[in-house]
Amino acid sequence: MAENLSLLDPHAARLAVRSGAFDAPTANVAPGFVQANLAILPRELAFEFMLFCQRNPKPCPLIGVSEIGDPMLPALGYDLDIRSDLPRYRIWQDGELVAEPADIRDYWREDLVSFLIGCSFSFEEAMLAAGLPVRHIEQGSNVPMYRTSIATTPAGRFSGPLVVSMRPLTPADAIRAVQVTGRFPSVHGAPVHLGDPAAIGIQDIMAPDYGDPVEIRPGEIPVFWACGVTPQAVIAHTRPSFCITHAPGRMLVTDIRNGALAAG
Amino acid sequence: MAENLSLLDPHAARLAVRSGAFDAPTANVAPGFVQANLAILPRELAFEFMLFCQRNPKPCPLIGVSEIGDPMLPALGYDLDIRSDLPRYRIWQDGELVAEPADIRDYWREDLVSFLIGCSFSFEEAMLAAGLPVRHIEQGSNVPMYRTSIATTPAGRFSGPLVVSMRPLTPADAIRAVQVTGRFPSVHGAPVHLGDPAAIGIQDIMAPDYGDPVEIRPGEIPVFWACGVTPQAVIAHTRPSFCITHAPGRMLVTDIRNGALAAG
Repeated sequence: MAENLSLLDPHAARLAVRSGAFDAPTANVAPGFVQANLAILPRELAFEFMLFCQRNPKPCPLIGVSEIGDPMLPALGYDLDIRSDLPRYRIWQDGELVAEPADIRDYWREDLVSFLIGCSFSFEEAMLAAGLPVRHIEQGSNVPMYRTSIATTPAGRFSGPLVVSMRPLTPADAIRAVQVTGRFPSVHGAPVHLGDPAAIGIQDIMAPDYGDPVEIRPGEIPVFWACGVTPQAVIAHTRPSFCITHAPGRMLVTDIRNGALAAG
Repeated sequence: MAENLSLLDPHAARLAVRSGAFDAPTANVAPGFVQANLAILPRELAFEFMLFCQRNPKPCPLIGVSEIGDPMLPALGYDLDIRSDLPRYRIWQDGELVAEPADIRDYWREDLVSFLIGCSFSFEEAMLAAGLPVRHIEQGSNVPMYRTSIATTPAGRFSGPLVVSMRPLTPADAIRAVQVTGRFPSVHGAPVHLGDPAAIGIQDIMAPDYGDPVEIRPGEIPVFWACGVTPQAVIAHTRPSFCITHAPGRMLVTDIRNGALAAG
């Protein structure tokens, strides 16, 4: 219990991660604080990837970007060292997964740039606070995610399909969810689609491309949000010579409060 | 009159600019459509400048960014050629203004990246539509702008003070203006300060660093917004070997409607 309590504070949580004491998905760590997807790319690709994010703000909302070669991200958290403060990383060479280490000090290079991209934990917290159901949380499973027929806007060497996450809601709850999540453009914002899955190229709603299927009850419609898996899929498609990402579900816990991301 | 009418449409306006028929400030051209500040930098500086904009979204809201070496910006306008579609440009070498041409075809290079940054015309239109006074428009002068004691967040080689524009309002109108302009984060958004100019390092409100002074009437307070002159001042401070900007008041007219920028 004492250990769990220490995970309420984001800096304490990062220290627990850094020491190796915490090595698990971060879904319930430091509630109320923004968590982020990670992509680390060489300087040579940094401008084009940032351009991709600028042109695709719904799937790729940038929470923070590092200086070239600098592993510290003071704007995102006190004492935050990107080389050690996520529970687990994935190392990619020429598009192939080559290692899944608990820190990346041995892989660090002076030309690396870290991109931190908003994740849906923040808007799910806002949905729950508004009394809206979040089915995969109720089920204790991962959110279902789908590759769509919607193309992202290409930038430089980066292109590929939009990946979406899905949460089933009644139409009335869907309307409320548009309002609630629309206030959080830096963590994917309002949905990109609702209703017919085939309209965005999804053939079987019970067979997601990533994550787990969830029950859709009578009277509910599927509601789709742009997903932070999109940039990872796009990077994989580009097959850069070198790249580091977080391992699925093992996000960066920042010192930014979810409420600070609300628009207006 | 026929000529003026052609300036109501943004593409027609750009063609008039391109042909040389229109060579003037763009303040009243194509009302209802977004206009943008321009900064063109070599690829070598592009990532760091984009990082600066990402870290300073209030003074540097990115409306669009080009591919490396590509003068066309299809996402911002039909047939839009950045080399010819602004009325006048400024060419900078090692921080010195060396030319002020009407087009930049002769200066174009394969390593150039164009950054388009939101300007206050969009939110001033929203203020006027809400019945709020905009003093410098009433006076027929340029908006007063001031260098402040507020530092921007540095990024790579870019740093410098925040530049603000000022519009005097009654407190009740200032509150309404916060709400109205806060809906437009991609064109500077809500004010950064109101009231005492000295609190942000402005010694004499009647002696702006750029633009013209405006009357502040009894019962009014000065209200300050982050200003698109900030990135130009920051670039000038960095003294890049090569850079192109728009000439003051001669902005890019885009096909994006002001209303499309509203948050939520």
